Amino acid sequence: MENFIAYNPVTLHFGKDILATLGTTLKEYGNRVLLVYGKGSVKKSGLYDQLVQDLKKQGFDISEYGGIKSNPVIEDVDAAAAIGRENHVDVILAVGGGSVIDSSKIISVAIPVENKAWDFFTGKTKAKTAIPLVAVLTLAATGTEMNPFAVVSNHALEQKSAFGSPLTFPKHSFLDPQLTLTVPRDYTAYGIADLIAHCFEAWFGSGEATLTDRFVISIVKEAIEYGPKLLGDLQNYEYRAKIMFAATMALNGTTMYGRSSGDWGVHSAGHCLSLLYDVPHGASLTIVYPAWMRHFKEHVGSRIAQLGSGIFNEPLTADESIDRIEAFFKSLGCPTRLSDLNIPGDLRTPIFESMVHTRVSGANMKMTEEDYGKLIELYM
Amino acid sequence: MENFIAYNPVTLHFGKDILATLGTTLKEYGNRVLLVYGKGSVKKSGLYDQLVQDLKKQGFDISEYGGIKSNPVIEDVDAAAAIGRENHVDVILAVGGGSVIDSSKIISVAIPVENKAWDFFTGKTKAKTAIPLVAVLTLAATGTEMNPFAVVSNHALEQKSAFGSPLTFPKHSFLDPQLTLTVPRDYTAYGIADLIAHCFEAWFGSGEATLTDRFVISIVKEAIEYGPKLLGDLQNYEYRAKIMFAATMALNGTTMYGRSSGDWGVHSAGHCLSLLYDVPHGASLTIVYPAWMRHFKEHVGSRIAQLGSGIFNEPLTADESIDRIEAFFKSLGCPTRLSDLNIPGDLRTPIFESMVHTRVSGANMKMTEEDYGKLIELYM
Repeated sequence: MENFIAYNPVTLHFGKDILATLGTTLKEYGNRVLLVYGKGSVKKSGLYDQLVQDLKKQGFDISEYGGIKSNPVIEDVDAAAAIGRENHVDVILAVGGGSVIDSSKIISVAIPVENKAWDFFTGKTKAKTAIPLVAVLTLAATGTEMNPFAVVSNHALEQKSAFGSPLTFPKHSFLDPQLTLTVPRDYTAYGIADLIAHCFEAWFGSGEATLTDRFVISIVKEAIEYGPKLLGDLQNYEYRAKIMFAATMALNGTTMYGRSSGDWGVHSAGHCLSLLYDVPHGASLTIVYPAWMRHFKEHVGSRIAQLGSGIFNEPLTADESIDRIEAFFKSLGCPTRLSDLNIPGDLRTPIFESMVHTRVSGANMKMTEEDYGKLIELYM
Repeated sequence: MENFIAYNPVTLHFGKDILATLGTTLKEYGNRVLLVYGKGSVKKSGLYDQLVQDLKKQGFDISEYGGIKSNPVIEDVDAAAAIGRENHVDVILAVGGGSVIDSSKIISVAIPVENKAWDFFTGKTKAKTAIPLVAVLTLAATGTEMNPFAVVSNHALEQKSAFGSPLTFPKHSFLDPQLTLTVPRDYTAYGIADLIAHCFEAWFGSGEATLTDRFVISIVKEAIEYGPKLLGDLQNYEYRAKIMFAATMALNGTTMYGRSSGDWGVHSAGHCLSLLYDVPHGASLTIVYPAWMRHFKEHVGSRIAQLGSGIFNEPLTADESIDRIEAFFKSLGCPTRLSDLNIPGDLRTPIFESMVHTRVSGANMKMTEEDYGKLIELYM
């Protein structure tokens, strides 16, 4: 086991009608709320109207920023931070999925400073204080609700980068699985894929940690058992709850105890596809992961076989494991080849260039330009 | 899944030589330290001398209370709190196992008030503030290092009771498995039994939570795989680390997500044996658990079978599961009948009376006096 520090101060409120206590929680921080949300689903579902009405009734002073994109961009973060700054907000209320909550984490550290928010990603500005962040999650996928990490794109620089500090944990996250009942089938599937990919990134990281391995297998098994059931019954509360909880556990630190790093090479490669073609994050991962495992099989073959045997509960070779994982992603309706997305034109060159530009690599399996070329061929 | 709130603010520092940063951590809270420890093992091992020397070199002002008993008593808590109060300590440093850290949690809330510490257990005094608590763990067993709970005995009242509040989480806990290398075989085994029993208490609680069930099975499997290996090789760092980490995970909230309660009837019954005959906590649990499962088999039989099949990785009936669990406890060298302890005299009556007096019961499986009598017969 590697030495590690476990720290996760998020208060997670999970369950049916759990938003009943949201106002009480916000009140701990003050009266002036910056409400941050996305491109319309919270308005369509009625959640926006209900929340604003409830909070106004409780005397909150609400300013807002809507329109965070599903692959969030730094311009929205800057614009939202400016509104928060002008309104001297006491607390940020992020209502949405990973993109809204990730953006809000950066907004929370950007409000107290005058700098551009991208400076946090480059290290030019250090986060020193943060406006408290309370999150209401509407999509089970990224795990952002219980970790300090944020991934945001900068199209001017053609980069999609991650930032996180002890300041960017949400103070509270509210997870009512009922709020995910309206998520369509494809995005439900991408969320399941995303949580599985998070488990894999931990699994292929550095450091032997047997109990943590068991936790990883547990989370993936839960997703393999209940993911397909949920896709066959999208209105089922229990299945929604199981997947929502699994997504949280997949990236709240539990999969990393006793490891010195996760790998994250696949996420890094997947970000290029999102950046270039707006591929949904989860879909980018189901395209890249089988290819990555095939490419690095020589180095991590025994680990792949151990993973496959664990999650499918039968002895499998590395090749069999990869085939089964790919088949599972397909069964969810996720793409496993870039060609599944029918994007027209020459793709190899821009993807390769983007990988070079963003220096795609993993902490454990380092990647060279030769790897980029081979990886792209394997998922074309 | 039941609604739940997950909150655990403890910073866990885990690994080899992790105490190197202890001073830096203590400094966050101030200079005046109340050092709390037990009956001699930290002096015998040299840890006491090393810590005191290191901290004095770093300019800390140390007052101390030694002599916490292995089944901790409220008189020690009051005496230690008085010393902390007199010396206006900024932070408590608890160095030891469950008894020392549990006592220190109560000391931390008792110092700011004048009342008797037992008043927290009866509810007569509410905890309002706490002196920050930093723990250095020297025994893998109770999980107290990452939860807010404390169990202390009051012999005058013939009670052993639990208390916990959001204020009684340690701020930081330092877990260096090297510090457990000197724990003798029997107490190492009791620790393994204790962590397994904590998992069982969660398992037999209320609320169906499939992923949490997988976590419980994971922790018990880890203990079943590496517990015997550790007992065969007590100086092995990796085995010590695995068991230490498993014990933390067994009672830090992970086993309770999505459940409304654990059962805790066995702990409650076991406390009577500790109170009457100073039976080590872990040993009291290996005596009571098989009997409890046999007694309540009619009600929780399918759950017992699911547990046994999960942890031993083969299809087992409830009866087979109980036999296998009992055999495993025996293989650790733990008692599974009260007669294994060779305590002289009439035991049935005092135990029965103690169970009546302390109102032994579980949250899920309630117990009557008839249950007490049958349970005692089953473990005699």
